[in-house]
Amino acid sequence: MQTQIMSIFEKARELAIIQSSAGVLGWDQETYLPAAAHEHRANQLAWLSSRAHELATSDAWRHDLESAEASDPGNDPKHTANLRELRREFDRSTKLSVELIARDSVASSLAKHAWASARERSDFSSFAPHLQTLLELAREKADLWGYTGEPYDALLEGFERGTSTAAVASLFDAMRPAARTIAARAVERSASLAPILPPGPYPVAAQQDFNARVAESIGFDFQAGRIDTTNHPFCTTLGPHDVRLTTRYMESDFTSSLFGVLHEAGHGLYEQGLPGADYGLPSGSPLSLGIHESQSRLWENHVGRSRAFWEKWYPVAQECFPQLASFPLGSFLNFLWRAEFSPIRVEADEATYDLHILLRFNIERRMLNGDLKVADVPGAWNDGFRELFGFAPEDDRHGCLQDIHWGMGGLGYFPTYTLGNINAAQLFAAAQNDPAVASGIQSASYLPLLDWLRKSIHAHGGTLDPADLMRQATGSPPTTTAYLAHLESRYL
Amino acid sequence: MQTQIMSIFEKARELAIIQSSAGVLGWDQETYLPAAAHEHRANQLAWLSSRAHELATSDAWRHDLESAEASDPGNDPKHTANLRELRREFDRSTKLSVELIARDSVASSLAKHAWASARERSDFSSFAPHLQTLLELAREKADLWGYTGEPYDALLEGFERGTSTAAVASLFDAMRPAARTIAARAVERSASLAPILPPGPYPVAAQQDFNARVAESIGFDFQAGRIDTTNHPFCTTLGPHDVRLTTRYMESDFTSSLFGVLHEAGHGLYEQGLPGADYGLPSGSPLSLGIHESQSRLWENHVGRSRAFWEKWYPVAQECFPQLASFPLGSFLNFLWRAEFSPIRVEADEATYDLHILLRFNIERRMLNGDLKVADVPGAWNDGFRELFGFAPEDDRHGCLQDIHWGMGGLGYFPTYTLGNINAAQLFAAAQNDPAVASGIQSASYLPLLDWLRKSIHAHGGTLDPADLMRQATGSPPTTTAYLAHLESRYL
Repeated sequence: MQTQIMSIFEKARELAIIQSSAGVLGWDQETYLPAAAHEHRANQLAWLSSRAHELATSDAWRHDLESAEASDPGNDPKHTANLRELRREFDRSTKLSVELIARDSVASSLAKHAWASARERSDFSSFAPHLQTLLELAREKADLWGYTGEPYDALLEGFERGTSTAAVASLFDAMRPAARTIAARAVERSASLAPILPPGPYPVAAQQDFNARVAESIGFDFQAGRIDTTNHPFCTTLGPHDVRLTTRYMESDFTSSLFGVLHEAGHGLYEQGLPGADYGLPSGSPLSLGIHESQSRLWENHVGRSRAFWEKWYPVAQECFPQLASFPLGSFLNFLWRAEFSPIRVEADEATYDLHILLRFNIERRMLNGDLKVADVPGAWNDGFRELFGFAPEDDRHGCLQDIHWGMGGLGYFPTYTLGNINAAQLFAAAQNDPAVASGIQSASYLPLLDWLRKSIHAHGGTLDPADLMRQATGSPPTTTAYLAHLESRYL
Repeated sequence: MQTQIMSIFEKARELAIIQSSAGVLGWDQETYLPAAAHEHRANQLAWLSSRAHELATSDAWRHDLESAEASDPGNDPKHTANLRELRREFDRSTKLSVELIARDSVASSLAKHAWASARERSDFSSFAPHLQTLLELAREKADLWGYTGEPYDALLEGFERGTSTAAVASLFDAMRPAARTIAARAVERSASLAPILPPGPYPVAAQQDFNARVAESIGFDFQAGRIDTTNHPFCTTLGPHDVRLTTRYMESDFTSSLFGVLHEAGHGLYEQGLPGADYGLPSGSPLSLGIHESQSRLWENHVGRSRAFWEKWYPVAQECFPQLASFPLGSFLNFLWRAEFSPIRVEADEATYDLHILLRFNIERRMLNGDLKVADVPGAWNDGFRELFGFAPEDDRHGCLQDIHWGMGGLGYFPTYTLGNINAAQLFAAAQNDPAVASGIQSASYLPLLDWLRKSIHAHGGTLDPADLMRQATGSPPTTTAYLAHLESRYL
């Protein structure tokens, strides 16, 4: 390999060492940090974050990147892709001035506090000026990053590169009527069945044991990962062989922690499947949020909520939790497939989840384009919600104030949840063109499926754009066909 | 405060942020790190360690230190002490060349591997050349650091500053005859009583519950610390309000994990008692190993192995562990006070422990002075051991190869264990001159004792030399009087 390429690649690996060190501190902060220790932890994280920023925007980095680009003989597509993606990230980081980043950081910090207090009191007006500031900052950043269609493109690019807002809108518009119909029918059916799980307690130790067996059976490698407990489940990667999942436990419902584990293990299997030798380089890194979420949703919903999965695992669950002994599999599946119109996104089920995203995407996009004033957000939210769900939330706390994302300046993030659902269904369908995968799924043996995902998705790291990766894996860029077919077959 | 002082103090705090970040990664490495993740963790730790070394030996550090020294008006003893100690550390770090540090690091790494394999095979000859190299490096470092008496002084200074080898030798010589007599009598008495604990299992969850109650009752703050599980108990401080203890569990003997916790909680109480506002400065840092060990030994042996302690806690233990119900307190205390001549230091009890240290100190000192050749170490060990214990170890694995310290280049460290015992006894005796402390100890209420230690030891951080701190706290520099009196009263 050229020396120049080596040099920038070494810098990229050093950056990954710094960021993954911060990852360890962040993981500990969520899992084990004593209550009084948060201030010092924030100081430690700030120090590491400054070092990472310094390195990734340094003149030395620019110089090494330029030298590597100039000397790339172009005979190794992976190296060329790595340079292209390092350039994309460098340009994105350096297009914003230090002054703007500092202003953005202060504004987000103030907005997050204001949001928490506004949500508590269901008082949108006290959050509105902060949202206005963040919106202006988002437009300022979008202008600096640049875009061809609309400002939202530049924000989306940070989460789902190479994907235009118009393309997302066209996918979402295409699925809206069917998604509404399916959700309404699923809710209706669920209301008539009124499924409930036999009462707890489902002891935490038994849940942990069951979850670990399930995670191991789908291929999660506990030599290179673990499961801990947090209030909000997440997955974080602390090194090439160090993937940490978390979940939370309810003694009244063992499926809560299990689906936390299945979702996060989906993220974790992706991380464990990335080329370890390329750790720190784009080719050894996950691609986008829409692809990451496709992996979590695939294992959570297509595998974990399927009849075939539970034909294998329900008898095991009945051994772990004796109260299930006389509760039939059919009733249990109805419980898993229950659907309800909740005003709260994070409580939404598979059948109704996307309606929340369609609503938010529409509002975000209109805010960014200047078609919707901040002051009009609550009204637009309630109107949009009523149109999709048939009722309006009781207040803004259960409406436009419910999510933290806008309060953190996270505009452009929401659509990746539904993109993940769309990608998951398309991948799950395409994988079954392989007879070994299809027959494995029938018998709840998922290693052929994991192999297919390793080869089709994980092995490529971040070298392709999402649409190209999907096309290569499934024969088509993302469309809603497979996803709507899946929802129909499960809920209609 | 002078700007120049601020600047070097800010650097010292930055160094503490880096080192405590490495502390988090090191703690995780011992507690939760997945098996396959050790290589990346080593890379992360190496990166942090390089940043810390760079900062602490930088020209900027030297410049700020010099400016602060030049501008110190001398009207604030704490600030002057901080500058003096920062100077001492800076000189010590910078007196060794980068080349020597690298050579030392490679030699230690090779020696550690060689030691592990030599110990496994009880083959001293394969370790001897490594020990020879480390010995030469230790002399080279001692020459660079400088000393007035003998090379051992310069090594000891790194662990117990301001303490001469001759002073340690004189303490150790003074206690040798009595320590031998007490040990022999304790072993004899224990052999005649042959105390054994009622058989397990002592469930781990019940041990954890009991240990946490004990730790909390002696003042360990779980808002600023926690207890986790490792193979070898330790205490590590990850920030001003973040002290992590670890212990290990044997289902056959609940006292094993408990005394691990009491010992480490002693270290932890010291760390939690340091002035938090001075975190990162010498005045907010622990003083020396001999003082640190005095705190762990005080809580482990003077508190935790006392009759008064168990008069309060034994009924609780009997509730937690039903098999103790018909086992009398007197028999339990005999079990706690059992003594045995083991060839292995880490298995030694309170009554025989120091004999191991006296032996090692003598051998180390003679090696450093050139009075003992490496090839003659096994013979000298076995002769010295026989003289103290009455028998020789069966092989070098149970003799001079048993400890990792020499294999890591840790010459000069061993005496601090016995210095800790000596200090612990002297502090425990002096504390009881305060009637509130004395009556608290009688009723197993230890907060007055903790207050006394906070005020007499913890609050001073690292501003005084150990002998001065002991003099200020107890009226005398360390002597063996209180320690021998304690051993006699417990074992004779």
